[in-house]
Amino acid sequence: MTMPLDDRGLLLGDGLFETILAKNAELMLFDDHVARLRAGCAAMNLPAPDKAAVRELCELAIADAGAKPRMAVRLTLTAGSGGRGLDRPDTVEPHVFATAAPAVRPEEPATLVTSPVRRNEGSPTSWLKTLSYLDNVWARRMAAPDDALMLNNGGEICCATAANIFWVKDGKLYTPSLDCGVLDGVMRRRVMALQPVEEVRAPRAMLEQSDAVFLTSSLIGVRPVASLDGTPLRSHSMVDRFAAALAAVS
Amino acid sequence: MTMPLDDRGLLLGDGLFETILAKNAELMLFDDHVARLRAGCAAMNLPAPDKAAVRELCELAIADAGAKPRMAVRLTLTAGSGGRGLDRPDTVEPHVFATAAPAVRPEEPATLVTSPVRRNEGSPTSWLKTLSYLDNVWARRMAAPDDALMLNNGGEICCATAANIFWVKDGKLYTPSLDCGVLDGVMRRRVMALQPVEEVRAPRAMLEQSDAVFLTSSLIGVRPVASLDGTPLRSHSMVDRFAAALAAVS
Repeated sequence: MTMPLDDRGLLLGDGLFETILAKNAELMLFDDHVARLRAGCAAMNLPAPDKAAVRELCELAIADAGAKPRMAVRLTLTAGSGGRGLDRPDTVEPHVFATAAPAVRPEEPATLVTSPVRRNEGSPTSWLKTLSYLDNVWARRMAAPDDALMLNNGGEICCATAANIFWVKDGKLYTPSLDCGVLDGVMRRRVMALQPVEEVRAPRAMLEQSDAVFLTSSLIGVRPVASLDGTPLRSHSMVDRFAAALAAVS
Repeated sequence: MTMPLDDRGLLLGDGLFETILAKNAELMLFDDHVARLRAGCAAMNLPAPDKAAVRELCELAIADAGAKPRMAVRLTLTAGSGGRGLDRPDTVEPHVFATAAPAVRPEEPATLVTSPVRRNEGSPTSWLKTLSYLDNVWARRMAAPDDALMLNNGGEICCATAANIFWVKDGKLYTPSLDCGVLDGVMRRRVMALQPVEEVRAPRAMLEQSDAVFLTSSLIGVRPVASLDGTPLRSHSMVDRFAAALAAVS
């Protein structure tokens, strides 16, 4: 399969994606991913994909790539072909495809540097996993080999380039609220289901003052952060407990 | 030609484009467009395309579509195939293609409604014409059949969804500065070469208090704005003079 040149995902970033972990060819948190994709389609006024059909696409992608113990399955849905300029055609027929590749889980804690690229708290697309992902690509490139801490235009903590962020302070758990311009992560929701989490708008300094900082995503599960802009961060047993609690699905 | 599924433009909006007006198969302001595309490649750390090669692509696209008196030529450059996750491969080989379609010039003045979707003044991608264009697509869809006035997160005037914005006040000409989160438009530069323009950071109210408001883009040239959020705007002879001065290239 290839993509026609009039595909709106290609031309305008008009589409959505999911990155799903597969362990021994089994799709982790598949229902969560499909639910998020369907919610994104509703927000973007796109026809929602059929769950069984996208599962089959993902399983075929794994088989095509040759099943490995740990794989990243990328499921992509674009707004289909055509329209003139920015406007969609009267009838939208999404293009949907999946690919799979071996996924390596990072063994080391993350090191973050604050990015000059800001998240857009004033766009509804910031909460969705859209194909218009260039800001995060750019932030990641500038931060390499570290990962980037992304703030919004108000200087509030948002996320890393492909992971949500949490911090521990005095035994309580915090994460940025979605209206900071934060992606509604599948693993973020899983952590929030384990223990009460306070969703806040908070400045960068809160991370340095915390007892521990960690990242979450479908591919990395729970990953501690060792330093921010070269300053070592503390560690806390709560992070290990979350990692253990989510080990079966990450 | 089709696009492979590992294309970074398709997967991540990692690429750039130009929309070039062709009149009777002649490419308007072609040097300006190629210069902007090459500057964008430098900013994004992508190999710059060869000018003669992209001209040939554009001319072939016009011929393929069947030359019409007025056409929009879309020239797209993606960051090529591959890499894992957000990271580009060690060697980037851009995918470049062009398509062409008849372009209709709007006869009526524009009517704008203020969009809830904000431009991101804190991202370097806001100054470039990138494939991560979903915010503008979204703003346009919400505003239809009007066009959207986009502000940034600070509430400052930025642009319409595919055009720059100018306003006249007491015989002087104003436009938002690029650091508001504004695309560096080819026709914007042409207007600024005709007459001194003050680049400012200004709140939305400045438009209602102005003597005239107009939009610019390669496809529309100079287009007056008749109303903002239902409030009629005034008109001014200066707008007609700009339209006339740029008629040969728009």
